[in-house]
Amino acid sequence: MGEFELIARHFTRPAPPGGAVLLGVGDDAALLRPTPGHQLAISTDMLVEGRHFFAGAEPEALGHKALAVNLSDLAAMGARPLGFTLALALPAADEAWLAAFARGLFALADAHDCPLVGGDTTRGPLNLCITVFGQVLPGQALRRDAARAGDELWLSGRTGEARLALALRRGEAWATGAPINEADVAAAADRMDRPTPRLALGQALAATPGVHAALDVSDGLLGDLGHLLKASGEGAEIHVDTLPLAPALQGLALDHQRDCLLAGGDDYELLFTADAAAHGAVLAAGRAAGVAVTRIGRIAAQPGLLVRDAQGRAFTQRARGFDHFGD
Amino acid sequence: MGEFELIARHFTRPAPPGGAVLLGVGDDAALLRPTPGHQLAISTDMLVEGRHFFAGAEPEALGHKALAVNLSDLAAMGARPLGFTLALALPAADEAWLAAFARGLFALADAHDCPLVGGDTTRGPLNLCITVFGQVLPGQALRRDAARAGDELWLSGRTGEARLALALRRGEAWATGAPINEADVAAAADRMDRPTPRLALGQALAATPGVHAALDVSDGLLGDLGHLLKASGEGAEIHVDTLPLAPALQGLALDHQRDCLLAGGDDYELLFTADAAAHGAVLAAGRAAGVAVTRIGRIAAQPGLLVRDAQGRAFTQRARGFDHFGD
Repeated sequence: MGEFELIARHFTRPAPPGGAVLLGVGDDAALLRPTPGHQLAISTDMLVEGRHFFAGAEPEALGHKALAVNLSDLAAMGARPLGFTLALALPAADEAWLAAFARGLFALADAHDCPLVGGDTTRGPLNLCITVFGQVLPGQALRRDAARAGDELWLSGRTGEARLALALRRGEAWATGAPINEADVAAAADRMDRPTPRLALGQALAATPGVHAALDVSDGLLGDLGHLLKASGEGAEIHVDTLPLAPALQGLALDHQRDCLLAGGDDYELLFTADAAAHGAVLAAGRAAGVAVTRIGRIAAQPGLLVRDAQGRAFTQRARGFDHFGD
Repeated sequence: MGEFELIARHFTRPAPPGGAVLLGVGDDAALLRPTPGHQLAISTDMLVEGRHFFAGAEPEALGHKALAVNLSDLAAMGARPLGFTLALALPAADEAWLAAFARGLFALADAHDCPLVGGDTTRGPLNLCITVFGQVLPGQALRRDAARAGDELWLSGRTGEARLALALRRGEAWATGAPINEADVAAAADRMDRPTPRLALGQALAATPGVHAALDVSDGLLGDLGHLLKASGEGAEIHVDTLPLAPALQGLALDHQRDCLLAGGDDYELLFTADAAAHGAVLAAGRAAGVAVTRIGRIAAQPGLLVRDAQGRAFTQRARGFDHFGD
């Protein structure tokens, strides 16, 4: 057994008894028993150093984020987490790094009853690959191809802070020159480093009649909305001045503010559509989940994506997504 | 959308209709419907260039092998494949490389009705992470902790050729100096580059009463047997001269021959245990699956692992496993 396997064993733990996991880490495969009658939701994400996170990133936050971005995908389907696998390539066997990484990872996993069920650890350039499994009742999964003309378009939480935090960390002048107080900067950094997967909201929405389509905003609001519209074969109109504005963004020039809001990326909020008749139920789902939900526009039969300001003026916004440090 | 995402879309395909996959690549998560009453088996493996395969490895073989080593884990549980996810970091967007990789990957996936259901592609040092999902009936999964004293110990196929092929590719003198004909060298190289997951055998064994424990031999026969014994709390005796000897190994000095057979690694054969009363049923399962199965020893109540030759003499074999190019 190599040093990596030894270390991996330190930070894997037995699966909790009584749950869906019959056999966890240590055999050729894990064995899970989803609740009968449910469908299985599966998503995988690979995070590479220098691309999805800075070299030297704080390992505890990295452990959190690596799992959070995967759980966000389950949230966007309305699925309840069952467990995850972790494959990890590390340049060196650094036990302190692994301990901190595991701390961040397991704190989030425990908060969502999502045990680690299997993994692989090897030497190589730093690379984290997580695959998550969840379950959802038949017909309840929130697919991105289910938006219908006339639907209201909703957003959870608020977008843009992660993009601002990235700009500050990179020293981009439009951000570093803006008047932003320290507490707001810290809050924005936290949004980038420790995103919150909207699992409770996703599950509440999946169980709400009239909620149709959803996806998570990871590459920028307009870019991800474009994916939803393309999959659904619809158009949309959004009202930029209805987008919730984080305190950190309030001191930015309008162009940069809108760039952060509409094309920032790394937000991990839910963008979803629902019948207008479900308006009250959607607000109730947000309250139950403890997350603000805001109506930001509507789905339209005519193709294309129209962005309007408070005066009703349409304007063009580069619909590019956040591309993880450039392609 | 970045060039990597574009290319990834080229080599992903819609899931076959009528199977377990309700929603494949393209949404936040895939949706699967396992057969009611089954348990879910999940395994993940990460392959890193220069560690699990040579830099410049032929991409079609690499596509095959990346999936094969994961399917081998399902085989060792006796599970039937349902699908897999692929996360891929690539140093450059090389379409010819991806096309060849996809060819090897999908040829094996199609042969086992195991569709790609989701994935992620990004720029980074070459890294392949596959997670496979399978299903197995309750009580039938072949766990490594289920061996019982008195069980016969069985091996599918034969071990050692991948280790020999590695030595030849590395130019190790004990291998390059041995009299081995070209066809046998080619067969050994094929075992290293294109291993065959023993899925049909694993499923047949899972359905055979009296078959107890199994794992796949990936790190060397003795090393993996050690894992099985430790998990089961038993000992074992194996008879080295009953191990099937590939033609390529016959010209090696006895020490090197045994090193390949017992501690070679990268074999992806099944090592399993069964009641002596199931002897005939095990042979029948091997015939039905088209794979030779050989009784190579027995599980014993006394701890430890005894290796005997044809004269019954015990000898000591370094029980180190293949460590993927050194730790």
